[in-house]
Amino acid sequence: MARIAIDAMGGDYAPRKIVEGSLWAAQEYGVGLELVGRQEDIQKELDHIRSVGYILSDCGTKGRQRKIKIDLDKIDYVITHASEVIGMGEAVGQSIRRKKDSSIVAAVNAVAQGRCEAVVSAGSTGAAMAASLFGLGRIHGITRPAIAVTLPRMDKPVVIIDGGANSDCTPGMLTQFAEMGVAYAKLSLGMDDPKVGILSIGEEEGKGNELVKETYPMLKQMHEDGKINFVGNIEGKEVFKDKADVIVSDGFSGNIVLKVTESCSLMLIKMIKNEFKSDIFGCIIGILAKPFVKRLLRRINWEGFGGMLLLGVNGISVIAHGRSSAYAMKNAVGAAVRVLNKDINTKISESINR
Amino acid sequence: MARIAIDAMGGDYAPRKIVEGSLWAAQEYGVGLELVGRQEDIQKELDHIRSVGYILSDCGTKGRQRKIKIDLDKIDYVITHASEVIGMGEAVGQSIRRKKDSSIVAAVNAVAQGRCEAVVSAGSTGAAMAASLFGLGRIHGITRPAIAVTLPRMDKPVVIIDGGANSDCTPGMLTQFAEMGVAYAKLSLGMDDPKVGILSIGEEEGKGNELVKETYPMLKQMHEDGKINFVGNIEGKEVFKDKADVIVSDGFSGNIVLKVTESCSLMLIKMIKNEFKSDIFGCIIGILAKPFVKRLLRRINWEGFGGMLLLGVNGISVIAHGRSSAYAMKNAVGAAVRVLNKDINTKISESINR
Repeated sequence: MARIAIDAMGGDYAPRKIVEGSLWAAQEYGVGLELVGRQEDIQKELDHIRSVGYILSDCGTKGRQRKIKIDLDKIDYVITHASEVIGMGEAVGQSIRRKKDSSIVAAVNAVAQGRCEAVVSAGSTGAAMAASLFGLGRIHGITRPAIAVTLPRMDKPVVIIDGGANSDCTPGMLTQFAEMGVAYAKLSLGMDDPKVGILSIGEEEGKGNELVKETYPMLKQMHEDGKINFVGNIEGKEVFKDKADVIVSDGFSGNIVLKVTESCSLMLIKMIKNEFKSDIFGCIIGILAKPFVKRLLRRINWEGFGGMLLLGVNGISVIAHGRSSAYAMKNAVGAAVRVLNKDINTKISESINR
Repeated sequence: MARIAIDAMGGDYAPRKIVEGSLWAAQEYGVGLELVGRQEDIQKELDHIRSVGYILSDCGTKGRQRKIKIDLDKIDYVITHASEVIGMGEAVGQSIRRKKDSSIVAAVNAVAQGRCEAVVSAGSTGAAMAASLFGLGRIHGITRPAIAVTLPRMDKPVVIIDGGANSDCTPGMLTQFAEMGVAYAKLSLGMDDPKVGILSIGEEEGKGNELVKETYPMLKQMHEDGKINFVGNIEGKEVFKDKADVIVSDGFSGNIVLKVTESCSLMLIKMIKNEFKSDIFGCIIGILAKPFVKRLLRRINWEGFGGMLLLGVNGISVIAHGRSSAYAMKNAVGAAVRVLNKDINTKISESINR
């Protein structure tokens, strides 16, 4: 049975929601857990769950909280004590080096030492990235690891890479992101021959910033060499159209796409609710429409995707949202499970080094 | 009476919708027009309007087409013949230099020569920018003009600058964008002491790409000098929150914010319509909810904002959406009217050169 290392102390609602979500995932996906963090705190959560026999789903759609039965005796888990926690605001480099016994570093070590197949953390993204990079090392030939994020769309999701690991990038890095993104789309999302685009402004070759203009011909060459299926520039307005399955970007712009999407969606839902509130007729329609709006919210909810994969490191590392609920955490572990036994890193390595 | 120069040949639906929208604006805002383009084509549109006595609103919300009565005899317009048109795909620099008698160049000249107070074009953004820059010149002290775009939000709009004029920027350029954006927010949107933020990833100072990290302390200094009200980094997720009124960005990321917002909104509206279609009950709710969804669409419709201002040039230049309908074009002229007699360029010049 595969085992997943969980940074039980990372995240706004840690350790409670992290432990709960991980157990939920272990039960649902049939994986084992290594819960890493303060022994006492984790044990307290486990004792609580054992006593009541369930957890609250805590789904971010603010729907009814479902009770999820958890049978601890059927879940294969161990606790690994780590005394320290790296907070959200801490300087990453320093804290990773100084806090040797932090939960994220210890959780990564569980993978590095071969006890676990993947690590999941909802703590500081920077700390999780740095710990994964230092602890697992890079795949041979990879310049910089990158974050692959799956965004919901009408028909099928789209992968954005890099979602925020590298604020400043070189063309060479972007070409590697393309290869990693393709491997991820194939293995994790089951896409057959994913179309790769590069985030830009303007459609034609030659439009965009210097980085895009330099990267474009390199991606085109890779297309001609049969390495990727490159479809050209993807404008902001085309992100949600079925033009590309994998969108390559520097981490700055990529992160902005993700965050603007999240924020814009929430604003729109609020705005439509407000429209309904404008008169008594609207209020009634609003109440009747509620289940439909809720279903939409569930569909676009980031919690359903749970985690972003840090690609390019020698191991599987999933970075969950800092605000992860039990439901989000369950899905973050699910994101790790989806690539288990898929040899994604071997595939990436083959692609980069051929 | 102020007169606005219209590039009658620019835009996907030119000259018909451009002429129609401009006349609508002239009638609504009480301004004169100089319609620039092929005499014959423009005259044909005018003859048609004179014969039927109205135009179709063509509002992008796909609502009922309203008939707008147009009394040509009460509108002060002249036609200026220009034989050439710069197409959407043409290389900007070349075509501006070669096509001396293009409608956009001639329309800009109407401002440069003092016959008009502003120019509005729905043609190629690059061509409109280049023609404005060459024809009007930069405001003394301005390194690079930038596009100011107004985005709808829940309560009040937000200004993004640069919306796409400069793909690669320096910190010095961004500080000027901040000053221009403040002048625009004050004079065009009536904001008192607009809060200025810089688009970034991560909240704290020191987070972001190299450009942001270098620009941040400069904006902070301007805040300390009382020049702007700087509020720090604005993450993608905060664009639609009331944290900043003016968001400074390089033109690449700024354009991506705009386009992703547009595309994400449309996808969400489609998704909610789909949810309604999922069962017979939903279909009924969907029909009842239609007027509310339509009202929302109208609120977030870019056509209501019509045009983006090119700031930093010696004159008023509005760049309208390429897909401008008559309604969008009317509002683009409205965007020019809103800053007429406001001495926005004097204010920008004073701010930059003090």
